[in-house]
Amino acid sequence: MLVSRIRTSLDYEVFSASEFFLNMLVSKKSQLILQESLNVDYIDRNGDKTPVNFQKNMDAVGGRFSSFSVEEGKVCVDYTVSVVTNNAGRPLEAAIYSIGRLPRKTIPCLRPSRYCESDMLSAQVQSLFCAQGDGIVLVESIIDWIQENIQYEVGCSDPTTSAGDVFERRKGVCRDFAHLAITFCRALNIPARFCVGYVFFEEPPQDFHAIFEVYLGGRWIKFDPTRLASPDNLVVIARGNDAKDTPFATIFGNIKPTRMRINIEQEDPYSDFCVKAGDEQAAIIGS
Amino acid sequence: MLVSRIRTSLDYEVFSASEFFLNMLVSKKSQLILQESLNVDYIDRNGDKTPVNFQKNMDAVGGRFSSFSVEEGKVCVDYTVSVVTNNAGRPLEAAIYSIGRLPRKTIPCLRPSRYCESDMLSAQVQSLFCAQGDGIVLVESIIDWIQENIQYEVGCSDPTTSAGDVFERRKGVCRDFAHLAITFCRALNIPARFCVGYVFFEEPPQDFHAIFEVYLGGRWIKFDPTRLASPDNLVVIARGNDAKDTPFATIFGNIKPTRMRINIEQEDPYSDFCVKAGDEQAAIIGS
Amino acid sequence: MLVSRIRTSLDYEVFSASEFFLNMLVSKKSQLILQESLNVDYIDRNGDKTPVNFQKNMDAVGGRFSSFSVEEGKVCVDYTVSVVTNNAGRPLEAAIYSIGRLPRKTIPCLRPSRYCESDMLSAQVQSLFCAQGDGIVLVESIIDWIQENIQYEVGCSDPTTSAGDVFERRKGVCRDFAHLAITFCRALNIPARFCVGYVFFEEPPQDFHAIFEVYLGGRWIKFDPTRLASPDNLVVIARGNDAKDTPFATIFGNIKPTRMRINIEQEDPYSDFCVKAGDEQAAIIGS
Amino acid sequence: MLVSRIRTSLDYEVFSASEFFLNMLVSKKSQLILQESLNVDYIDRNGDKTPVNFQKNMDAVGGRFSSFSVEEGKVCVDYTVSVVTNNAGRPLEAAIYSIGRLPRKTIPCLRPSRYCESDMLSAQVQSLFCAQGDGIVLVESIIDWIQENIQYEVGCSDPTTSAGDVFERRKGVCRDFAHLAITFCRALNIPARFCVGYVFFEEPPQDFHAIFEVYLGGRWIKFDPTRLASPDNLVVIARGNDAKDTPFATIFGNIKPTRMRINIEQEDPYSDFCVKAGDEQAAIIGS
Repeated sequence: MLVSRIRTSLDYEVFSASEFFLNMLVSKKSQLILQESLNVDYIDRNGDKTPVNFQKNMDAVGGRFSSFSVEEGKVCVDYTVSVVTNNAGRPLEAAIYSIGRLPRKTIPCLRPSRYCESDMLSAQVQSLFCAQGDGIVLVESIIDWIQENIQYEVGCSDPTTSAGDVFERRKGVCRDFAHLAITFCRALNIPARFCVGYVFFEEPPQDFHAIFEVYLGGRWIKFDPTRLASPDNLVVIARGNDAKDTPFATIFGNIKPTRMRINIEQEDPYSDFCVKAGDEQAAIIGS
Repeated sequence: MLVSRIRTSLDYEVFSASEFFLNMLVSKKSQLILQESLNVDYIDRNGDKTPVNFQKNMDAVGGRFSSFSVEEGKVCVDYTVSVVTNNAGRPLEAAIYSIGRLPRKTIPCLRPSRYCESDMLSAQVQSLFCAQGDGIVLVESIIDWIQENIQYEVGCSDPTTSAGDVFERRKGVCRDFAHLAITFCRALNIPARFCVGYVFFEEPPQDFHAIFEVYLGGRWIKFDPTRLASPDNLVVIARGNDAKDTPFATIFGNIKPTRMRINIEQEDPYSDFCVKAGDEQAAIIGS
Repeated sequence: MLVSRIRTSLDYEVFSASEFFLNMLVSKKSQLILQESLNVDYIDRNGDKTPVNFQKNMDAVGGRFSSFSVEEGKVCVDYTVSVVTNNAGRPLEAAIYSIGRLPRKTIPCLRPSRYCESDMLSAQVQSLFCAQGDGIVLVESIIDWIQENIQYEVGCSDPTTSAGDVFERRKGVCRDFAHLAITFCRALNIPARFCVGYVFFEEPPQDFHAIFEVYLGGRWIKFDPTRLASPDNLVVIARGNDAKDTPFATIFGNIKPTRMRINIEQEDPYSDFCVKAGDEQAAIIGS
Repeated sequence: MLVSRIRTSLDYEVFSASEFFLNMLVSKKSQLILQESLNVDYIDRNGDKTPVNFQKNMDAVGGRFSSFSVEEGKVCVDYTVSVVTNNAGRPLEAAIYSIGRLPRKTIPCLRPSRYCESDMLSAQVQSLFCAQGDGIVLVESIIDWIQENIQYEVGCSDPTTSAGDVFERRKGVCRDFAHLAITFCRALNIPARFCVGYVFFEEPPQDFHAIFEVYLGGRWIKFDPTRLASPDNLVVIARGNDAKDTPFATIFGNIKPTRMRINIEQEDPYSDFCVKAGDEQAAIIGS
């Protein structure tokens, strides 16, 4: 059990009437929100602070979002949340399910998507990872390959970069690493999906983080192909087929982001307990 | 934030082929399950233990349930769960919303239901609680009235007892208290619903508990008309219009319950923190 | 295939600020709406016509609804719809499913509800209908009993009348007939639900009509216990556990209904065709 | 109102254990199914006909589907359906909504997708269609451009062909035409989605057809960029972001399609009536 306290501040300069869709609210799925507040300050071109009407807590594809409109001026978004998650860890073994045994909801996670062209890389992936063992072992060998072959380089990719591009150029950021891993899994007929959220990094600055989830042994298991964070510590914002479904903000209009600050604290109030929630057969806590 | 560890054991003698629907699994709505297991042992008439195929974790009206079938013999159900809830307390003020301002989903909670005949008690309720103040104050005065006029008496009511019966006979158990309070609220045009779950009682034995929720100030607030427990400590199993929607088990066949044992532990790992999650305007934890 | 053109006019005198919830819009479930319009005229106390803002086409428990608020004055609601339904008739045989074979969604339709106290009439029902044959035959024998024992009498019941009352007093209107039939079915462990809508009556005046649906042979089948209309010709407004879930209007405030007019035309453009849509094995139309 | 009778036969040779997902069932959204049957014959390698267990009528992303597994042999799928749709035509005017006025559910249809890279073609599209008028006029000018610049050529594209490819190569089939039109609309901030189904072609052979829908004036309006069919006559199978979401079949295994035959009849039993269902203000049929 992990308690996370997160504060996100986003500032924008706005040059024309613009529509903001904010998607950085944490998911309510398998996460318990203890406290949450979203505040938007709008300073118009005369320098006056004007109240903003925004719509809260709506559900969309991928996650929750809020939206509002402003005219020319400055916008400061401030989001704070305290949330409890279950970081009890993954099972030691979890087999790949045959297609026929997969729940129907996982089938779309087998198909190629905008940034994960699993159909076009299929032949190469099959030859790279044939005979690599089952389930978790196979996914870890995919991540090993990515760690050895893809260089983490801030600023080397942009919003149009797909897994195919990353496979060719051999570099990327967390989002690109996740896209490539998802593409490899799908090409091997393993359902995989994109997952963004908040996690504490030892090395500042704190930032949004993207990882991926794989459907193995009857459940979704998180993996971080960058190996920069513990995947089970991720506080999830949204899940989707790829980054297309999970922007942390979508803005229509002429704007410039001027500052982003994220502050994350994570602690486990029961770190000295033996909590093994991932394993249904385990003894109950404290008994 | 409250961590609860619950263990429920239910034993039955089964005299003919029977179908069990178990509804005592805790809700996933605004509750984080850390660990959960459900086990059913079936001993047939020859005394042999036979595996039972049961369907897990399905969602139904009110809550989650599992179901299975057995022949003549004995059945032992064992359910354990560790769950985190947010017991941060209620706001000091929360106004009654006018009908026009209510979210559409709350409208069914204004209507009479099987055990809460708010239409038939309407005139009496109006005269009892006119001019009793707004929101929480009014609901507390309803509970005051119940405390003064209705006697808590184990075994005095049965599954057909409605709020009208309780109002007449002036006695009941937790379920009857909740039905009466709901009926009063609905007759005053305040949405109210039934809520069952687990909560630790100072005085043994531990048992299922029924309370009610009222829609005030834009949110559902829990109240316990028996005043036997802190309503925010309730781990919710299911919500519904009344007890009809929230049985902890429904069994079709000729059976006899032979034993029920519930064990509950609750603790707050942050009891020394100042967590005020119920209040959206409050400062974030630790900041 | 039946094409129905329906026009409903409802007039009200309003003595104080009131909130209207209109539920008489036809269901979109298995019905194709060709054209639909809802118009509300509000004449205030000065006799001026004032526009009314109303919310359209929302889904609620049971069916769709629209809502609006007005002050003192007069309200005229005008609803017209053209809708296609499938009146292809029922199968000749359809067996009662055992509890274990029933889809989970039908289980709530086995439980007693506000107006259908199947638990309290259980013993009497069991003795009346034991050994009455399977499926459709049994339901028809229930309707035979109702036809023989319950008198149809306009104005003999009110909104608090339940199946228990009807069973005792031996008279009622369409809604009471349906409640009694549902209660009998549930007491025999057959899922049954309430269904209101529009159907053309040979004898004027036209009105809303209530029938019931029974889950037999893997599908819901309509029956009319009044035998005043062909159940498959009913254009459904809403379904629910009983009349509590399916009001055609719910009004909070001090009002008086002053006039209700319903006009219904129904015709089958393929009446000379051999359409047997109820039977999945039948040859396709026209082939 | 249009009545369509459709029969689809799909034959496959199967060389190894395979999993079939069939998505060619017609949608139930705004369509009334009068009669429907799906039959699968499996002939094993010994030439024996073996029954196939398949799961019917499940809902997935985009549409409904059925699935089944077979071993080596032959598979013959036979699907027949009679369905009523509303082909009452489009309004004369329908304005583009500003982003802020769009319902939240339409927002994903503004984003680029696998086959519709609206972000990458944005600059070109802006220059092609600036100052082209509002709503329907603008969409028709997009289709005019496609008609003038893109050649319809059977077999010129494959499952990896995207709108970007079509824009470059200037040729494609119905699916490519739809992808390009969707891409243009999204680049102009108009929500657009992909739509596949059945429609009668004057020139045989009959086939599946792909068109697109645009959100204008508060509703989705169908357009056919190939101008081969009347878009309102399309019986919809599925809708999605692009062809990725709407395959008519997805098969995992080593198989070869050996034959596909589609037979479609469409007729309007009220062709001499004045039905104007698309226009909410129009007089009701026959009145």
